[in-house]
Amino acid sequence: MADTARPARDPRRRYGLRPTMKDVAARAGVGLKTVSRVVNGEPGVTPDTERRVREAITALGFRRNDSARILRKGRTASVGLILEDLADPFYAPLSRAVEEVARAHGALLINGSSAEDGERERELALALCARRVDGLVVVPAGDDHRYLEPEISAGIATVFVDRPAARIEADAVLSDSFTGAREGVAHLIAHGHRRIGFIGDLPRIHTAAERLRGYRAAMAQAGLAVDDSWVALGPTDPGRVRADAERMLAGRGSAAGPVTALLTGNNRVTVTVVRVLAGLERRVALVGFDDFELADLLTPPVTVIAQEPALLGRRAGELLFRRLEGSGGEPRRVVLPTRLIPRGSGEVPPHS
Amino acid sequence: MADTARPARDPRRRYGLRPTMKDVAARAGVGLKTVSRVVNGEPGVTPDTERRVREAITALGFRRNDSARILRKGRTASVGLILEDLADPFYAPLSRAVEEVARAHGALLINGSSAEDGERERELALALCARRVDGLVVVPAGDDHRYLEPEISAGIATVFVDRPAARIEADAVLSDSFTGAREGVAHLIAHGHRRIGFIGDLPRIHTAAERLRGYRAAMAQAGLAVDDSWVALGPTDPGRVRADAERMLAGRGSAAGPVTALLTGNNRVTVTVVRVLAGLERRVALVGFDDFELADLLTPPVTVIAQEPALLGRRAGELLFRRLEGSGGEPRRVVLPTRLIPRGSGEVPPHS
Repeated sequence: MADTARPARDPRRRYGLRPTMKDVAARAGVGLKTVSRVVNGEPGVTPDTERRVREAITALGFRRNDSARILRKGRTASVGLILEDLADPFYAPLSRAVEEVARAHGALLINGSSAEDGERERELALALCARRVDGLVVVPAGDDHRYLEPEISAGIATVFVDRPAARIEADAVLSDSFTGAREGVAHLIAHGHRRIGFIGDLPRIHTAAERLRGYRAAMAQAGLAVDDSWVALGPTDPGRVRADAERMLAGRGSAAGPVTALLTGNNRVTVTVVRVLAGLERRVALVGFDDFELADLLTPPVTVIAQEPALLGRRAGELLFRRLEGSGGEPRRVVLPTRLIPRGSGEVPPHS
Repeated sequence: MADTARPARDPRRRYGLRPTMKDVAARAGVGLKTVSRVVNGEPGVTPDTERRVREAITALGFRRNDSARILRKGRTASVGLILEDLADPFYAPLSRAVEEVARAHGALLINGSSAEDGERERELALALCARRVDGLVVVPAGDDHRYLEPEISAGIATVFVDRPAARIEADAVLSDSFTGAREGVAHLIAHGHRRIGFIGDLPRIHTAAERLRGYRAAMAQAGLAVDDSWVALGPTDPGRVRADAERMLAGRGSAAGPVTALLTGNNRVTVTVVRVLAGLERRVALVGFDDFELADLLTPPVTVIAQEPALLGRRAGELLFRRLEGSGGEPRRVVLPTRLIPRGSGEVPPHS
């Protein structure tokens, strides 16, 4: 997995610029434990040492991180998780993993769903902050997260997962959607397909845009032109997906003819396309982005580009708690690889 | 659907015994709107009318329901939903339905998961109450909900869903697990099976106990003895379920021989058993409790006893908001019917 720090656009937004307890300890020439004792009003510090620590605090403008303090103080800490869709099983292992990390840190996890609505996401995030969560893990729906800056400045650690933040620099844990989609399409091309369709999620969603980019890159790399009619982006409701799939498979509106293979942009799209293909006489190749339950027991078993939703959740949760425990530094972007799992549907040859 | 009020064991626990605004209005001889104005300090009430309303409030011991007031006052209201398992897809449509009802009432939904741990449920419920939710929908994991009495008395409306509350009287919206399971087993018996196994969830879980009761009732009604080795209850993790299924199918530990058909107690159990059966030469009949995604595209398609998780969630959410809006009366128990959907796996005859 790639684990890279990106430069922050606005220095005031960097986590690293807020002095940490470590900075105070270094300046006062004492250990971290001593600073912690002074900050939390605990005994065991000589008056002289306390004075030096307080001077360092003043000099550096150190502000106690209330979140970290609360985590230490024994009040039940809580972290919030904002999901995009409660009904998408992709988020189930992700949520559970964040919950397990929270529990390992003695914190409760509180969830909410944005239902893919940026305004709803904002409302929920601020409602959770107002209800004193110590940190937030966000699967973002919105396209502008500047509303979170005051919360982040106030010490609410925030980690984005599955999709990056927009218009602020913040920690993010993502899957490599671009490479995954490119490999999926290359796999279909390697099995003889030339007319390949892509049915994806709304183009404003980061993962949908990245997967489309991967699809186009693989086609371009193989010297294949993409007919406009082979790309369909939109909401993942079954009616829309079914209509687009049937249109592409019939070659309607296409000068280049019907597709012989499909890349589906996420598991919600895939399960609908599986239903469409089950009703056809001829066999059409299918590679689905996201693994899903029972994919291997279908006929044919479905070839997928698997993400690791549990690992996404775990990495996001761990990063959140490292921030809550005072870890500074630039916002980090963690990118997890995907994995092509050939099972049958992606190895179907083109019908002649 | 049956919709029955049960008598409360302890009168102090009845919702109905707290005087409502309606009672105040009736006693003061004014309209509800007038009482609302007085209670909320809004203008438009003459001093004389206000005096009468205040006298009625004192005489009745009326205490303003803060939850209802908050709902009216425009602060973002919120309701909490405590689930049993974030990773069980059964709860996805249930959650989404509660969320839709909340949204229709201008309220946010905040979720948490008990991970089938009663202590965790208590901790979460109290944490959500402390974070000022206006009401709670609970899929209970614990076996004693008296800890919620102070919250309910303080005006936090609480509705249980999927499973009833224990040791308190409270609103509950349930599926008819007993009848569903009995019909599922009767269906297998009607297709010639005599040796039928039941693999279910932990026996302390209400739905698991009810489904076991339904299984036993159907067997008894057909005059069939149940061999001890044909019943296996426990956690739904795949390892446990697989071991129990394999044991029953091999007839190990059974004087009465291997089972020819299985009733599985919920969708988590069913998907594991589907995997076990897919690896067998002979065909074994299967009826699963709960419908699940792609059940109809498996080979054979899986016969299920379908619940309506979205309707469970909607009814629970609606009941919650009726309570928040001041609806009194005894705790209600709403029981939704299940539906047998024959698809193939439940119609497989016994192998000879």
